[in-house]
Amino acid sequence: MLKWIITAVCFGSIFVDSFWVVKPGPKYPPTKGEVWPKPQYETKENTFYTFNPSHFKVKILDQTCDILTNAIERYSYIVKSKIGGRNRNIKIRSHRKHNELHRGMLSELDITLSAPCEEYPYLDMDESYNLTVSATSKLYSSSIWGVLRGLETFAQLFYLSDDRNEIRINTTQISDFPRYKHRGLLLDTSRHYITISNILKTLDAMTMNKMNVFHWHIVDDQSFPYQSEIFPELSEKGAYDSSMVYTKEDIERIVQYARERGIRVIPEFDVPGHTVSWGNSHPSLLTECYEGEEVIGMGPMDPTKNTTYKLLRDLFQEVQTWFPDKYFHVGGDEVQLDCWKSNPELRQYMKRNNLTAADLHTLFMRNVIPLLAENSKPIVWQEVFDEGVTLSKDTLIQVWKYNWISEMISILYSGQKLLFSSTWYLDSITSQWTDFYVFDPRKMVYDVMQNQTLLEGIVGGEACMWGEMVDDRNVLNRVWPRASAVAERLWSAPTYHIISKSSIPIEAYHRIEEHTCRMIRRGIDAQPPSGPGFCVV
Amino acid sequence: MLKWIITAVCFGSIFVDSFWVVKPGPKYPPTKGEVWPKPQYETKENTFYTFNPSHFKVKILDQTCDILTNAIERYSYIVKSKIGGRNRNIKIRSHRKHNELHRGMLSELDITLSAPCEEYPYLDMDESYNLTVSATSKLYSSSIWGVLRGLETFAQLFYLSDDRNEIRINTTQISDFPRYKHRGLLLDTSRHYITISNILKTLDAMTMNKMNVFHWHIVDDQSFPYQSEIFPELSEKGAYDSSMVYTKEDIERIVQYARERGIRVIPEFDVPGHTVSWGNSHPSLLTECYEGEEVIGMGPMDPTKNTTYKLLRDLFQEVQTWFPDKYFHVGGDEVQLDCWKSNPELRQYMKRNNLTAADLHTLFMRNVIPLLAENSKPIVWQEVFDEGVTLSKDTLIQVWKYNWISEMISILYSGQKLLFSSTWYLDSITSQWTDFYVFDPRKMVYDVMQNQTLLEGIVGGEACMWGEMVDDRNVLNRVWPRASAVAERLWSAPTYHIISKSSIPIEAYHRIEEHTCRMIRRGIDAQPPSGPGFCVV
Repeated sequence: MLKWIITAVCFGSIFVDSFWVVKPGPKYPPTKGEVWPKPQYETKENTFYTFNPSHFKVKILDQTCDILTNAIERYSYIVKSKIGGRNRNIKIRSHRKHNELHRGMLSELDITLSAPCEEYPYLDMDESYNLTVSATSKLYSSSIWGVLRGLETFAQLFYLSDDRNEIRINTTQISDFPRYKHRGLLLDTSRHYITISNILKTLDAMTMNKMNVFHWHIVDDQSFPYQSEIFPELSEKGAYDSSMVYTKEDIERIVQYARERGIRVIPEFDVPGHTVSWGNSHPSLLTECYEGEEVIGMGPMDPTKNTTYKLLRDLFQEVQTWFPDKYFHVGGDEVQLDCWKSNPELRQYMKRNNLTAADLHTLFMRNVIPLLAENSKPIVWQEVFDEGVTLSKDTLIQVWKYNWISEMISILYSGQKLLFSSTWYLDSITSQWTDFYVFDPRKMVYDVMQNQTLLEGIVGGEACMWGEMVDDRNVLNRVWPRASAVAERLWSAPTYHIISKSSIPIEAYHRIEEHTCRMIRRGIDAQPPSGPGFCVV
Repeated sequence: MLKWIITAVCFGSIFVDSFWVVKPGPKYPPTKGEVWPKPQYETKENTFYTFNPSHFKVKILDQTCDILTNAIERYSYIVKSKIGGRNRNIKIRSHRKHNELHRGMLSELDITLSAPCEEYPYLDMDESYNLTVSATSKLYSSSIWGVLRGLETFAQLFYLSDDRNEIRINTTQISDFPRYKHRGLLLDTSRHYITISNILKTLDAMTMNKMNVFHWHIVDDQSFPYQSEIFPELSEKGAYDSSMVYTKEDIERIVQYARERGIRVIPEFDVPGHTVSWGNSHPSLLTECYEGEEVIGMGPMDPTKNTTYKLLRDLFQEVQTWFPDKYFHVGGDEVQLDCWKSNPELRQYMKRNNLTAADLHTLFMRNVIPLLAENSKPIVWQEVFDEGVTLSKDTLIQVWKYNWISEMISILYSGQKLLFSSTWYLDSITSQWTDFYVFDPRKMVYDVMQNQTLLEGIVGGEACMWGEMVDDRNVLNRVWPRASAVAERLWSAPTYHIISKSSIPIEAYHRIEEHTCRMIRRGIDAQPPSGPGFCVV
């Protein structure tokens, strides 16, 4: 009861309206033509150019490829159709009212890509770019991925004039690059099935936030929607419904869609825990959990059976053919050691080999990681590191538990690399974007360690959307714009002055309003970021 | 920081997955053909009838009217098209596999409405009905509103057989009526504008939950979307955007749509506080708030000016022509007395008349209530009662603050009637449906008072969806299915054994899953109620 009262006091209109003087209109009026995530270096002038779709062209001055031409087509459509929303009233005027800040028409964007396109995005890809906005604007990058990021920035600079009669873009110079290499979003498609259409929209939204890793937590205890060709029974018996599967074609489509946006798709097949749905078709993979003499359910995979590893080897081989990224997430979290301890055969095995249940987990992970394709690199949840499994130096350890600072320090001192997620769980519904925005993993470690060299081992982080309480109906508005806070933290320059929510600069509140409306106009059903307001869609 | 940690622990997948033995599949598999809110008396047998749209007819045996014929058309479509979702595979078989529970085809529904239809729903309307399901099913009520409730129940009894080949309905007898007369949902369309389409969907969802009052908190500080004909400047200057208004035609459409579903539409024009947006066009209505010698913003309406009351009288007259319900909500909450105290003219007025700022509020409400049309009845927020304004006995006092039990007791002892809302604020996003489900206003008062006769003064309650953090994108999934918990508490028989969340019967978890899928199939983007699962839409 007490808990409820506190909640009511915090969230009722009581709180929100009790500021002494209330102003009519939106709480944070949106900015105009400001970029999210904030570019590293940006100089913006008051002078502006006007935009007329029929007098604008994009020129490719150097290298090109399908990714570039498709991106130009996409962004041309966005700039022509999505700026300012439906009730804009663009007038193409040859004689316009004199405005001394007006510098003429934006006539051209010249794109210089100085190196051939790469086939797929990867951890160490170059995403930097330079952009100059003037009558003939220039976008330069030595990487197709940088060009993609620059095009997104370019599109975000446009805005509607106050009288809604003109699309404008200010004279601007931008030099931009990401702070962290791995900027991910985890989506869980096992607790609830998410349709392809919403996964593609999620990729669109990631593009708008310059996130570059789609961590697909594709299967789990509840359902197994991955439709294998060599083990079709896994989804036949493990999916919620025959309509709720991801086929090879679906996966190819998602991977290609992501590739064209510079987004890597990393599948997670979480083992040995979180695998109960695998048992619907392959019960012998799992461990029978006992209470006394009685079997009370199924637990983690059986780490002592060769057949377990054989199936995983064959399945992983197929998965790695379908997902071209070098990285593969093998999970390793929350293994129910109590189940292993309860099982008579495993008890005997442990006794015979003088092993603890934790040793079984270590044994399992040690056996599983070599099943991955040559040259591939594992990602694991922090437990695998915590339990002392020897990991190659290019393994990424994903930190998610609440003792995150000491955990990160241990990992970095051991010379391993890590991804940070602990404070970025989107299923924490009380967390606003500002709650996510204040955490910066390198800054947190630096504050304790004062050691700059270790920090490079933090290669990035991920916002995690676990699926217990989200499905196709609410996943987009649960993720966006809150994940945008994580996206900016991972892309933009460090902001050492942000030490708590109250030190978040007010400009960010205004800018995320514009960004949210921008996402909504581009088809993402984002929720309001910070309070009363509106978007003209 | 500590707060964050607690949140992470409570909401991460840590918590949800840490049960010892996890089962694959949905956490609470949905029921089949169970009604929400639960009917007062229901006898259901294992025997069932099958349903074939082309061999089914509805007969009206007594009175009829447009409301009834329209409802039959709506429900015929729902039963034919919305049971079981898209992947059903209905086979109309003349020779079906023998099933000893099968009692044949459902061929007919006979509707007996024994009294002429009433024009509009109202507080004391009769919503009781009797329903018998057999080959020729019978629905009886002495009121059109009861027939509507019975048709909804009838539609909810259908379900798809496990093999998805048949629509079935079990032999059932139901005798049903509401526990509380006023079962409302407040929707705030000022903090964010909600489109007509989503208001109509909200009415659809209310129908499915047998809620009967749409409390339209139409204007507030932030925006004034009500488009008056006599004061068009109020929305011209007070709406967020010229596209974000409700015209007379919009309101008529909503009122008619609601009427056909037995839902009353009660507008709230909250005065004298929460009115800053009125000042965009009529600044002189408001009080200038001072800090020292300086005006720092606008506060509540000025209670000392005749022009204030004149505008309200004319506006209310128009509003009451457009909204036919006898009740009218005049607000009266959260008046910023500090602003009144800061204003030099009001200070003088108070001094001259020996009044406190609280007296000014009393004065204001005393002046405003008589401005309503003759025979109309006010609803006010609890502050108006708390400050001692004399109110007619048919005034409804809406209790929303956290000291709700003592507040209700004071109101009831004074012989007034009340609506309960304190624990049903849907903007409390941490609250699950179960958090709302455990509160029963009459039960709470009875537990303290042990006095049955007073309880009739609690005429109902409302779930409140304040609009700070919801807009068109997330309003449906923020409200549903959580408001369904309130709907059942207000309709169904009291459940004295529910004293905390842990005493909620497991059947309710399964039943709300079915109900949520049912809402989704009928176009309401409800969110998952309690955890992993799926709906075939």
